[in-house]
Amino acid sequence: MGRVTARRRVIRIRDGAVSARPDTLVAEEPLEIRLNGKPLAITMRTPGDDFDLAAGFLVSEGVLGGAEELANIVYCAGATDDGSNTYNVVDVRLAPSVPVPAVSLERNVYTTSSCGLCGKASLDAVRTTARWPLSDGPSPLRLETGLLAALPGRLREAQRVFDRTGGLHGAALFSAEGELLDVREDVGRHNAVDKLVGRALREGMLPLAGAVLLVSGRASFELAQKAVMAGIPVLAAVSAPSSLAVDLAVETGMTLIGFLRGSSMNVYAGEERVVLP
Amino acid sequence: MGRVTARRRVIRIRDGAVSARPDTLVAEEPLEIRLNGKPLAITMRTPGDDFDLAAGFLVSEGVLGGAEELANIVYCAGATDDGSNTYNVVDVRLAPSVPVPAVSLERNVYTTSSCGLCGKASLDAVRTTARWPLSDGPSPLRLETGLLAALPGRLREAQRVFDRTGGLHGAALFSAEGELLDVREDVGRHNAVDKLVGRALREGMLPLAGAVLLVSGRASFELAQKAVMAGIPVLAAVSAPSSLAVDLAVETGMTLIGFLRGSSMNVYAGEERVVLP
Repeated sequence: MGRVTARRRVIRIRDGAVSARPDTLVAEEPLEIRLNGKPLAITMRTPGDDFDLAAGFLVSEGVLGGAEELANIVYCAGATDDGSNTYNVVDVRLAPSVPVPAVSLERNVYTTSSCGLCGKASLDAVRTTARWPLSDGPSPLRLETGLLAALPGRLREAQRVFDRTGGLHGAALFSAEGELLDVREDVGRHNAVDKLVGRALREGMLPLAGAVLLVSGRASFELAQKAVMAGIPVLAAVSAPSSLAVDLAVETGMTLIGFLRGSSMNVYAGEERVVLP
Repeated sequence: MGRVTARRRVIRIRDGAVSARPDTLVAEEPLEIRLNGKPLAITMRTPGDDFDLAAGFLVSEGVLGGAEELANIVYCAGATDDGSNTYNVVDVRLAPSVPVPAVSLERNVYTTSSCGLCGKASLDAVRTTARWPLSDGPSPLRLETGLLAALPGRLREAQRVFDRTGGLHGAALFSAEGELLDVREDVGRHNAVDKLVGRALREGMLPLAGAVLLVSGRASFELAQKAVMAGIPVLAAVSAPSSLAVDLAVETGMTLIGFLRGSSMNVYAGEERVVLP
């Protein structure tokens, strides 16, 4: 856990009383992702599961779709003047059979669209780059609201670092039966999801048919896009979705649930997967 | 307010009761920022104050430092196949005297660093690209904790859209006397700050000596960086800071306050500007 948190001195003021003490903060460091040796993107992330993060990022961008397309991932030594390894630069090497995409991105999934730039273009770009349709798995998903309502508590229990720092976004994958499959925390909400998806890719589990992705915050377009690219049919968020996240869910047939709190929730799309009371 | 929010159909589940109704969501759309006609970056943002957002983004990236360096900003018509204006593409034209930087970025402030990639490199990059030292203004800033404690309430009062959608991050600028100078909301926290900073640039108010920046969420490195680039000496956040945000504050002499709630707060750096009880 060393680099996941960091200690810094803090002056606490509580009800007029002042105390100085060390505080545990969430660690944030830049990660440069290289693709076959070429710099591709930089993300500010919480160190840990960096190979998963890089792999998941490339799934979101439509570069990777299966473990067999990945040759290996390494930390780049010698990235600094003194040749030391910062463990903040990773290189993803594609299998020889996989063409290296012409990606200059940031966010090439938007910029590859040929029709200018609007919400419609973003939706089109995701649709054209997605590797598979969203799949319920062997049988149609039918989620009881009671099962859904129990998920945030399970995520919270599994979020080890949050309680100490208050600075981390959480994301978790659940099975259709509500079983916690995997959980990740990160200073960036998109990173937490990329780490989940990248791990799934490396374990040969993509597409994530029948899975439920839960995020501790809001459901932005970017998070909905990541779910679609990983083949996840259900995205649930503790807070609000954005308009474009809802549009993408409607467009792709994804179930999108927001404000999942206590026994309450809002279903914005794909309600056929929810057993209404 | 048209494009700031959007209506979508939602199925609400509350205590076992189901109702279908329209819901107000925060609008999210891509914005492409061009620099002298060349695509530079895409951000997912809430439409509105787009020129401020573009200008502020370029302040954060070290491209712009004053209103006189800006020729004009326009929406690009004809960005779509049918030639219509999506109002999602803006072109920032620099004054003729300003050299066009060689920016391919995303996040060029990090990648311009020559020393590999670590937190140290990120701090170095901000230091070398900052236009001004942080300034208290005519006299040293001395902020009473009571004044600081009152700021989140003022931000919340000024956040018009949040209450309706629950999906917006807020950011506000305050004077040293606690007067609300400006407030912005956006689906992306970095956009809200860019909009504040861009407006200040266009009104000739940079550097923002003696100002306090309050953000409704967490204080990441990126937000601290934006404050430094705008010359803002005090950053306060309702939630947790990250380790690298604290490091940047210590490095640049910025005051960084986290967990600003009720009468409580944590001072992580620059405590000389806070009058301790």
